[in-house]
Amino acid sequence: MSEINLGDLRQQIDVLDEKWITILAERFRVTHEVGVYKATQGIDPIDPQRESAQMEKIAMLAEENGLAPDLAKGILRLIIDAVVSNHQEIAASLSNPDNS
Amino acid sequence: MSEINLGDLRQQIDVLDEKWITILAERFRVTHEVGVYKATQGIDPIDPQRESAQMEKIAMLAEENGLAPDLAKGILRLIIDAVVSNHQEIAASLSNPDNS
Repeated sequence: MSEINLGDLRQQIDVLDEKWITILAERFRVTHEVGVYKATQGIDPIDPQRESAQMEKIAMLAEENGLAPDLAKGILRLIIDAVVSNHQEIAASLSNPDNS
Repeated sequence: MSEINLGDLRQQIDVLDEKWITILAERFRVTHEVGVYKATQGIDPIDPQRESAQMEKIAMLAEENGLAPDLAKGILRLIIDAVVSNHQEIAASLSNPDNS
């Protein structure tokens, strides 16, 4: 067994942090498009059915990958709250273009 | 401009969700090694200096990638809390091997 080197492990963590940030930024670019679509179609930004399906799916994915499902759901909760708030802003700016 | 297709966008989101779950699972495998190292060396699981450096770095990375820094910090908070709790469990099981 090779010796554990704290510096090496922290470097691995930093690389992984950069990766999840990049992926979540990409995810927000996609959900922004969803927000524009929903706003132009007059669809409610909040979709409890889709949301609960996403929560179930993320918990299952976490379980499969050995990540604590409650942590994954907690993170998805923060993400969805930010997405809904962004969608509400998009809808508001479309209905009141002068305020944008 | 091509027409927005909600199904396509949601499929992209699902792929990205799978990616961040995989990355965070990998991150926990690395921090678990850090926990074992710290426990065997008698190093405190909580490292406020490292933590505040990580928070600053994640906020900067988020900013650079167009992700809300507060959201990134909120997610990192959940991750660090789970990591610290895992490190405390590792330390406890090493000092009381009969309870493991």
